[in-house]
Amino acid sequence: MPYDATDASPTAPAAAPGRPAPHTCYLDYAAATPMAPEALEAMLPYLSERFCNPSAPYALARAAKADFEDARARLAHVIGARPDNVTLTAGATEANNLAFAAVDGPVLTVATEHESTLRVAEAREHAFVPVSPEGLVDPAEVARALTPQTQLVSISLANGEIGCVQPIRRIAQVVRSERMRRLEAGQKCPLLLHTDASQAAGNVSVNVSTLGADLVTLSAAKVYGPKQVGLLWAADGVELRPLTLGGGQERGVRSGTENVAGVVAFARALELAEELRPQESRRLAMLRDGLQGRIMAAFPWAWVSGPRSGKSRLPGLMHVSFPGLEARRLVILLERVGVCVGTGSACAASKMRVSHVLRAVGVPDDVAAGSLRITLGRPTTAEDVDYAARAICDAVRQEAGRLGIDPATGRKDVI
Amino acid sequence: MPYDATDASPTAPAAAPGRPAPHTCYLDYAAATPMAPEALEAMLPYLSERFCNPSAPYALARAAKADFEDARARLAHVIGARPDNVTLTAGATEANNLAFAAVDGPVLTVATEHESTLRVAEAREHAFVPVSPEGLVDPAEVARALTPQTQLVSISLANGEIGCVQPIRRIAQVVRSERMRRLEAGQKCPLLLHTDASQAAGNVSVNVSTLGADLVTLSAAKVYGPKQVGLLWAADGVELRPLTLGGGQERGVRSGTENVAGVVAFARALELAEELRPQESRRLAMLRDGLQGRIMAAFPWAWVSGPRSGKSRLPGLMHVSFPGLEARRLVILLERVGVCVGTGSACAASKMRVSHVLRAVGVPDDVAAGSLRITLGRPTTAEDVDYAARAICDAVRQEAGRLGIDPATGRKDVI
Repeated sequence: MPYDATDASPTAPAAAPGRPAPHTCYLDYAAATPMAPEALEAMLPYLSERFCNPSAPYALARAAKADFEDARARLAHVIGARPDNVTLTAGATEANNLAFAAVDGPVLTVATEHESTLRVAEAREHAFVPVSPEGLVDPAEVARALTPQTQLVSISLANGEIGCVQPIRRIAQVVRSERMRRLEAGQKCPLLLHTDASQAAGNVSVNVSTLGADLVTLSAAKVYGPKQVGLLWAADGVELRPLTLGGGQERGVRSGTENVAGVVAFARALELAEELRPQESRRLAMLRDGLQGRIMAAFPWAWVSGPRSGKSRLPGLMHVSFPGLEARRLVILLERVGVCVGTGSACAASKMRVSHVLRAVGVPDDVAAGSLRITLGRPTTAEDVDYAARAICDAVRQEAGRLGIDPATGRKDVI
Repeated sequence: MPYDATDASPTAPAAAPGRPAPHTCYLDYAAATPMAPEALEAMLPYLSERFCNPSAPYALARAAKADFEDARARLAHVIGARPDNVTLTAGATEANNLAFAAVDGPVLTVATEHESTLRVAEAREHAFVPVSPEGLVDPAEVARALTPQTQLVSISLANGEIGCVQPIRRIAQVVRSERMRRLEAGQKCPLLLHTDASQAAGNVSVNVSTLGADLVTLSAAKVYGPKQVGLLWAADGVELRPLTLGGGQERGVRSGTENVAGVVAFARALELAEELRPQESRRLAMLRDGLQGRIMAAFPWAWVSGPRSGKSRLPGLMHVSFPGLEARRLVILLERVGVCVGTGSACAASKMRVSHVLRAVGVPDDVAAGSLRITLGRPTTAEDVDYAARAICDAVRQEAGRLGIDPATGRKDVI
């Protein structure tokens, strides 16, 4: 794909709203994934002829119900679970809220969580487990932070902003030990481990028995499925309490006519994501490492946030900060040449606030202000990465020049 | 369409699950509507190339946000409202739950409500306004049932089971009078009127200023839009309280990445439903009256529930009970010849319980057990109705014969 740096000049016309720029290079797969063609194909019949209400009594409706339950079973199969333990929701936010509703008491989480976990935690008694500067949770810190009253620990399997993959299995061992201790001490206070695996799915294993959590959230929108579709897996014995009441669908936990189309598409999307995971993780990590290498070679003064170790890091994600630069201006320069990158989680980005994740890992606000979150995805090619690398380097050089910052050292010129 | 009564013989093979019977005649539009081709067409780009997260910072995402807000504005326009007063939800059940969450105190509703209203009402202090044998609410009864503590009155604009259209405008006057009385008496207790207009939309006006309610629920799934998409309109000054917390979408009232595809389709579907409403209401009422005429001529002993007056009755709906017969067997006989009819609201039907709506209007349980809810929709033709009328008459005759009931009189033969 030819890249012409003159496209990035401030006078180049911005792409008309809704129209892709001449070269579109979307690198914000952590914010939204396009639907996999296979998932869309699986969905379409349910948006047309197979539209029946699964609760109606005739054969066509029973077929819709059967297809819905088949999709549930396939979702369960991918995560190594039984279908009865899977509750379908309208996305990860609802699933996270539903997970918290399972308990009444104090919760323990981390300050780097997605807002759908943070806001629910903040609405009740809560405490934070500290995270390392790389954003990682030390299971020993979870053990220290647990009180005899803690009822829920909620830690995302992978962070969508800086990409750290948490040691959930080891955290689950800590939670089990505390549960055992309570049992032996005759204490009745329940303790559950919840993990939002939305950003992890398709990148690392989301097998529920491997994870060892009691509650697991997944989102279709992050695995090339449709938006507003998600699930909450709950272990045997965990009693979910509904957020909405009504027709009693989803065993009374989540009322409302079933989204057969969305759930069938979710099942196909998750199956595919899991099938492609081994090769895609390797491929994306390689592309990401190449991109990071080029950016850091050009700007050795830039900061990369998140874990250094590839094992604890989402393969397709790179979070980079250019101290002294403004992310918003970089985004605009990049979109002019068709490169779409995020500045953090999309929810926070729309509010143009300094990221709470970066604050929690100790990135100074003036560094955080110049941050890009670049996430590669299934459609990303080596050519895209090459194009994006050149565009990002040009944009950073241009902005640095405008602000009197030496692009080689990141130091402000003294006049 | 040729109709062959031998198809209805008990030995005829049932259609394979998921395959339409030789002649498919779907008459359960109150349970689910197929998507209008126009709505599906409007939706598809957002399931493929226009997939961006509306909260992301670049132009393509801002375009998705703009399209989402445009859809909200169009939905608002159809109901004569301002966009800021419209909260998009994952369907009518969530919207009804959200409406109730706006108040803390006792609520007043009717026993014929949909389960998504009844269950929420039952979870708090509540009382029922009586309904007439036709299922209608007398506004004077609302005035009598109001206490100084009542905070919410919730009455559906149209009942999806027996089709009564309630005098919401006059009920709104009662609510306003009580509000005025409280104001003059210096009482601070709030009082809101909520109406679930899901089943009414496309059949009667859902203009919010005409209705005079403070909260109005609409569902995309009932107006030839997608499932799991709905809205709650709230008047100025009504403060909605979120059921789920998170990224702060929908002004903080309803977090979760926006369902751009679903909402764009909803807007197109509602616009179309409103545009076609005058002629469709007339056409469906005429077809329904024809169907009812034929069934009642054949079985003068059958009961039709719901209002006698066409003005208070959903145009495409006919609820008929055949005392002594079993609805489930009729449904099976009918589905063998491709005729799909409901037995009540789909949610209740799946539980094979006697309808709470019929109980509330005083239909004896043994009559209720032989009930079919037949609802015509936009794709229904005169030929469909003719085919269905013959199929229903055959099925009833066959079942009556099996049970020793005289099909002409409904009387059990005395042997």
